[in-house]
Amino acid sequence: MAATKESPIIFYDLASQKNTPWSPNTYKTRLALIHKGLPFRVEYISYPDIAPLMKKLGAPPGSPNSSKFPYTVPVIADPSPEPEGKPIYVSDSWEIAQYLERTYPPPQYPTLFPYGAIAANRAMATALGRTAYNALADLAIALIGTNHVLDERGHEYFMRTREEMFGKPLVEVVKEEEPKWSTEIRSAWATAGKLLDANGPMDQVGPFVMGKHISNADFLIAGLVLWLRCGEGSEGHRWKELLEWDGGRWGEIWKAVEEMETRSTEV
Amino acid sequence: MAATKESPIIFYDLASQKNTPWSPNTYKTRLALIHKGLPFRVEYISYPDIAPLMKKLGAPPGSPNSSKFPYTVPVIADPSPEPEGKPIYVSDSWEIAQYLERTYPPPQYPTLFPYGAIAANRAMATALGRTAYNALADLAIALIGTNHVLDERGHEYFMRTREEMFGKPLVEVVKEEEPKWSTEIRSAWATAGKLLDANGPMDQVGPFVMGKHISNADFLIAGLVLWLRCGEGSEGHRWKELLEWDGGRWGEIWKAVEEMETRSTEV
Repeated sequence: MAATKESPIIFYDLASQKNTPWSPNTYKTRLALIHKGLPFRVEYISYPDIAPLMKKLGAPPGSPNSSKFPYTVPVIADPSPEPEGKPIYVSDSWEIAQYLERTYPPPQYPTLFPYGAIAANRAMATALGRTAYNALADLAIALIGTNHVLDERGHEYFMRTREEMFGKPLVEVVKEEEPKWSTEIRSAWATAGKLLDANGPMDQVGPFVMGKHISNADFLIAGLVLWLRCGEGSEGHRWKELLEWDGGRWGEIWKAVEEMETRSTEV
Repeated sequence: MAATKESPIIFYDLASQKNTPWSPNTYKTRLALIHKGLPFRVEYISYPDIAPLMKKLGAPPGSPNSSKFPYTVPVIADPSPEPEGKPIYVSDSWEIAQYLERTYPPPQYPTLFPYGAIAANRAMATALGRTAYNALADLAIALIGTNHVLDERGHEYFMRTREEMFGKPLVEVVKEEEPKWSTEIRSAWATAGKLLDANGPMDQVGPFVMGKHISNADFLIAGLVLWLRCGEGSEGHRWKELLEWDGGRWGEIWKAVEEMETRSTEV
């Protein structure tokens, strides 16, 4: 069953101009694969190609209840245990994390869910989703679009579908969201930070969502930092400010993820 | 600092006809005290006496942002470390749990938050609140009222304030909620059960919210079982059905809590 360097897991990510990670959702899967120490190869897909490719591969839809965009990434293809067997396709970052934990279990492979507290990890991700993610999403989407982060075909598709979603040009969305940076967005992140403060003093109990040990829920935070950084460019001021917010908690998580990336299992 | 049998923690709970526990919120605190092994004495307060008593004692409001009912129970009075000192008053079941964990820390006292995952425990409680608690609350409140569970003065106060809240007689609320038992209510609990199923097979990883170890978040579930049981009477069919729902998970949690009650530290 185990993926190898010769027969790695295929990880379907979103294309960009430079084909480097930028999407918060797929980044969670990338980090899960690295954390587990699993060899993987990235296939970057342009937005309009997702549905046709996934249908062709026979991968399940990631959002089966969304009639508009049922096929999404991340998707992984885990090589079959049979020499000529069809790979196992898994869609949706949460489903993928659960699949990886089951298929490549601790202690042989590092855990995505310390203490086996999988439901609690999911509830934390939901709590961070309601606060940190929701507050940042409109600004990040609008920056990704207006700064032309994606490949040409993906960009055209993204602009068209997102402007339809917002009902206005993304350049307008940036203008509306900018003043929220130090107010609503800051405040939502502070709420998330305050929840995590319940764990105790960071220097004693660790900065991570589950305390001492990095876990799947932290990858959501890392995805948000990446999203903003790609959206405004690495010289932007906001993503650097964010790393300082809430006692530097988000910076500590980001630092740990940067260190993980130096040990990437991408082949 | 440590409470003793001679100088126990005073736990302010809600009065009832028989002065036995019935409120889901205060029950969480009762169970936290028992789980920690801390001697406590219960003072049952009638609803209309809460605010005047707490003001007299100098206890902080439990819901400072609620202009209508700022003073609530549970409240605890932890004896002062000084012989003649004023006790430390703590209000609100979440604040109390955090206070107890800090003041009577593991490993000397059993932990309310396994693995130090305090924020995750809180997020689980929020997730259970949005599903299990919210779905059951109207029915449970209406049953507590219409079946006259409370002491006379408390009952009068409860009926008046709750009927004002619902804008209709509680007997009407019971009628409206009854058909939801097997539909909305059942479905919301199934959602909570499905989240907990993510932890893995119950017989291997344990039935509790955090898996193997009972924790503060489980006391919320126990409080809901108690609430319904007191509301419909111990011969009622619903609370017994509930124990069977979702693979018997709620029944397993309730059984553990019943076992805890046999080791009660109430003095």
